[in-house]
Amino acid sequence: MQTDLVAALDIGGTKIAGALVDGHGRILVRAQRPTPAREDGDTVMRAVEEVLAELTATPQWSAVTVIGIGSAGPVDASTGTVSPVNVPGWRAFPLVERVRAVTGGLPVELIGDGVAITAAEHWQGAARGHDNALCMVVSTGVGGGLVLGGRLHAGPTGNAGHIGHICVDLDGDPCPCGSRGCVEGIASGPNIARRALAGGWRPGPDGDTSAAAVAAAARAGDPVAVASFERAAQALAAGIAATATLVEIDIAVVGGGVGKAGEVLFAPLRTALKSYATLSFVRGLTVVPAEMGTDAGLVGAAAAALARRGSASGAGVG
Amino acid sequence: MQTDLVAALDIGGTKIAGALVDGHGRILVRAQRPTPAREDGDTVMRAVEEVLAELTATPQWSAVTVIGIGSAGPVDASTGTVSPVNVPGWRAFPLVERVRAVTGGLPVELIGDGVAITAAEHWQGAARGHDNALCMVVSTGVGGGLVLGGRLHAGPTGNAGHIGHICVDLDGDPCPCGSRGCVEGIASGPNIARRALAGGWRPGPDGDTSAAAVAAAARAGDPVAVASFERAAQALAAGIAATATLVEIDIAVVGGGVGKAGEVLFAPLRTALKSYATLSFVRGLTVVPAEMGTDAGLVGAAAAALARRGSASGAGVG
Repeated sequence: MQTDLVAALDIGGTKIAGALVDGHGRILVRAQRPTPAREDGDTVMRAVEEVLAELTATPQWSAVTVIGIGSAGPVDASTGTVSPVNVPGWRAFPLVERVRAVTGGLPVELIGDGVAITAAEHWQGAARGHDNALCMVVSTGVGGGLVLGGRLHAGPTGNAGHIGHICVDLDGDPCPCGSRGCVEGIASGPNIARRALAGGWRPGPDGDTSAAAVAAAARAGDPVAVASFERAAQALAAGIAATATLVEIDIAVVGGGVGKAGEVLFAPLRTALKSYATLSFVRGLTVVPAEMGTDAGLVGAAAAALARRGSASGAGVG
Repeated sequence: MQTDLVAALDIGGTKIAGALVDGHGRILVRAQRPTPAREDGDTVMRAVEEVLAELTATPQWSAVTVIGIGSAGPVDASTGTVSPVNVPGWRAFPLVERVRAVTGGLPVELIGDGVAITAAEHWQGAARGHDNALCMVVSTGVGGGLVLGGRLHAGPTGNAGHIGHICVDLDGDPCPCGSRGCVEGIASGPNIARRALAGGWRPGPDGDTSAAAVAAAARAGDPVAVASFERAAQALAAGIAATATLVEIDIAVVGGGVGKAGEVLFAPLRTALKSYATLSFVRGLTVVPAEMGTDAGLVGAAAAALARRGSASGAGVG
């Protein structure tokens, strides 16, 4: 019996990746285009169509039964539309309808990129075997997704788990989202770097002012760099603890560029979590680094689509 | 065919209420005892047993197929134990086992009191027909519960929805729970009163310094009283918006003594919610007063137990 395949799309502000993925999460075929993020909506869509054309031209395409899309948000799974912040040409863009039009009417599952990463970590990564988990991406922005009761919790519009934009400082700095004191405004890479520079940290001869450079300085003992990571860890801890207190999770998985900073982030994060996750039912919460690599978006989109079709063989992606 | 009944218990720091409830949420028989909250654990349990003895002595008892318990928390549904903050004699007290021992081994469903209230509002109250809802009790403390995807989300230990102890002010005042800047520390009735008194508000000739008295002063235009309710509304809005951003809810139901303050609370709450609930998928969120009365705990415990047994006739409970 031939195994069903899923065509997965991972749509971000930089690249549009596609793949054919089997029921074990293995990537059999790949295609990719840069995202023409500053062009009009139809031009962006043409890049998606080129990726799909490469996939549909393969002999394996005949085994594809469902399409999974993980997209930069916000998305709206209820209407099949997307409005990625970094792709201004797409506002309430009917992505699902347009993808269906060029793929012979196959069913299409649309989720946000944070939800996709979560599906991947739950299927094959650090959240494997956990029925209640928060998975996060901490990089230029802060995103995430939830597994509740053993299943991906995408929410009615596919955006659940948006931990970067929960308020942990109700009188805090305004956020571009319109709110204030958001986790992202304190814990994202650019904000870690901004805070270190404001505190007097200066880059080395290479002029690198990224959060990775601040992390290197923190590892070397620079107190301003250390303090900036500690503040980010405090905001992440407050947000993770809030999530655990609201929905009961037993593990938080942190990935993304800032997540790769290692103990410079995770040591203060574990300490701060003890301060904010205090109720009996959240005290056992652990926080660990993500395990999935750059294919997480594709594998997660595939997992979500297969789960919706009831054919994922992975434990608990349901 | 005789309809199954559920025996419901609502256990709080002041009273232990019991009832026989039918599949439509109608209360057929009641029993009640004051909670001997300062006594040892077995003395508290005897009060529960007296309530159950009244119920088991009724002719309707023979139709009871399941027992539902909503208890002041924290509870631990995974072990069947409870540790109510205001009942120090009960710490990891094996309530489920003890109740089962005096009721012939019927199945027992244990949930936290905030979850029970939520089950009631979803079955018969303000959250009826909503598949994704947060229900809150704002009074001496702040509690809550969640409905996600049409079902009560109690979490593995029965404590999910604990919105009173999520942090909305990461550098804020220490909370008795061990964390800081919790919603409850800003928005509970005693904190509304404390803040008004600190700001110079003085009670009338009756000396009433309750949040209800502050609400009366706010309705009469006292600016300090108004400001104290506005601050509570701000914290509630930040917490409600965080919940919506994390799990996607379309309605927040606010009950409890402070919830009864009316527009003095709800007007600034709606305004503040516009400031914090800014992402596209949470902007449509509405906030409304609770509809269930003092029987919410009993009706909700019954709803949760019937849902677990698959026999609730109410829409969407379970």
